[in-house]
Amino acid sequence: MAAVAAELERRGLETVLTREPGGTPTGDAIREIVLRKGTSLTPVTEMLLMNASRAELVGHVIRPMLSEGIAVLCDRYVHSSYAYQAFGRGLPIQLVRMTCAAATGGLMPDLTFYVDISYETSHARVTHRALDRDRIEQEEAEFFERVRNGYKQLAREDSRIVELDGEQPAQQVVADALAAMERLFA
Amino acid sequence: MAAVAAELERRGLETVLTREPGGTPTGDAIREIVLRKGTSLTPVTEMLLMNASRAELVGHVIRPMLSEGIAVLCDRYVHSSYAYQAFGRGLPIQLVRMTCAAATGGLMPDLTFYVDISYETSHARVTHRALDRDRIEQEEAEFFERVRNGYKQLAREDSRIVELDGEQPAQQVVADALAAMERLFA
Repeated sequence: MAAVAAELERRGLETVLTREPGGTPTGDAIREIVLRKGTSLTPVTEMLLMNASRAELVGHVIRPMLSEGIAVLCDRYVHSSYAYQAFGRGLPIQLVRMTCAAATGGLMPDLTFYVDISYETSHARVTHRALDRDRIEQEEAEFFERVRNGYKQLAREDSRIVELDGEQPAQQVVADALAAMERLFA
Repeated sequence: MAAVAAELERRGLETVLTREPGGTPTGDAIREIVLRKGTSLTPVTEMLLMNASRAELVGHVIRPMLSEGIAVLCDRYVHSSYAYQAFGRGLPIQLVRMTCAAATGGLMPDLTFYVDISYETSHARVTHRALDRDRIEQEEAEFFERVRNGYKQLAREDSRIVELDGEQPAQQVVADALAAMERLFA
């Protein structure tokens, strides 16, 4: 994200970075609830909370920034709800899509990067904080396989989603991302 | 609510009382966000948060209680979302109904009481805590008129909603509620 932001700035675009869930005071309070270890949220609750946080972010940050001509980079957006809450938790994809559309008022990104890594790689990368995994990170391998397959399917079906191979060295992932962005500006 | 619960117990039904938003640990945390003074939630955020709290209450309290044969009395349910977020805030009623249906899995009450009072009466009743009004109680009179008209319209359209005249002495409101409940058991 930092490298993409730097490239946008180099092209003269002012840029802000944000993330989900969170990015607003209400969103951060929701993030607390959603990631807290030991609570058992129903799948629908989780999906509604993610979208409540998203609605705040779109209404109070993303739309105001865009209307000032500022580029917004967001760590996660509606595709994470499709992948986690529909493919991962098993909620109907139409319910998730409709709730996302209500939360965003239909605002969609020009470009989405999905960085693909295997469960083994991701697991290895968070091992150093094994005792500090949040509620969602504590899910079993099968859950993450469903999420991963969901993302890959979404990327196949939508040309605005670019799948990057996250097993490569970070520098190569960045190079691939910048090349995809180049095509956006071409 | 206490009088209705006492009557149900008299008839041999075990009874639990609960309320929205809240009634579960996650719901209480959501209640904090929704009623906090000084935050400006978008209408969609408010509606999604109310339903996230509701999904927890239905999943972790109402359905488990009902499946044990216990009667559940709830202070507010989906009709409050219709009245406040659709009629009051102006969200499309179909969006609110669909989100409520997702949150509840379609579980609807056998009987709903709407206690109708004028804005003036309600305002007079909370005057003693005028400095302690929550975010929603701080709305202007026009908002509450839209909410009230919404409730009255819902009650006209659904025979399972009973409108009670809350301008009467409390004892008469209770008597009317018990009479309506009588018809449910007849």
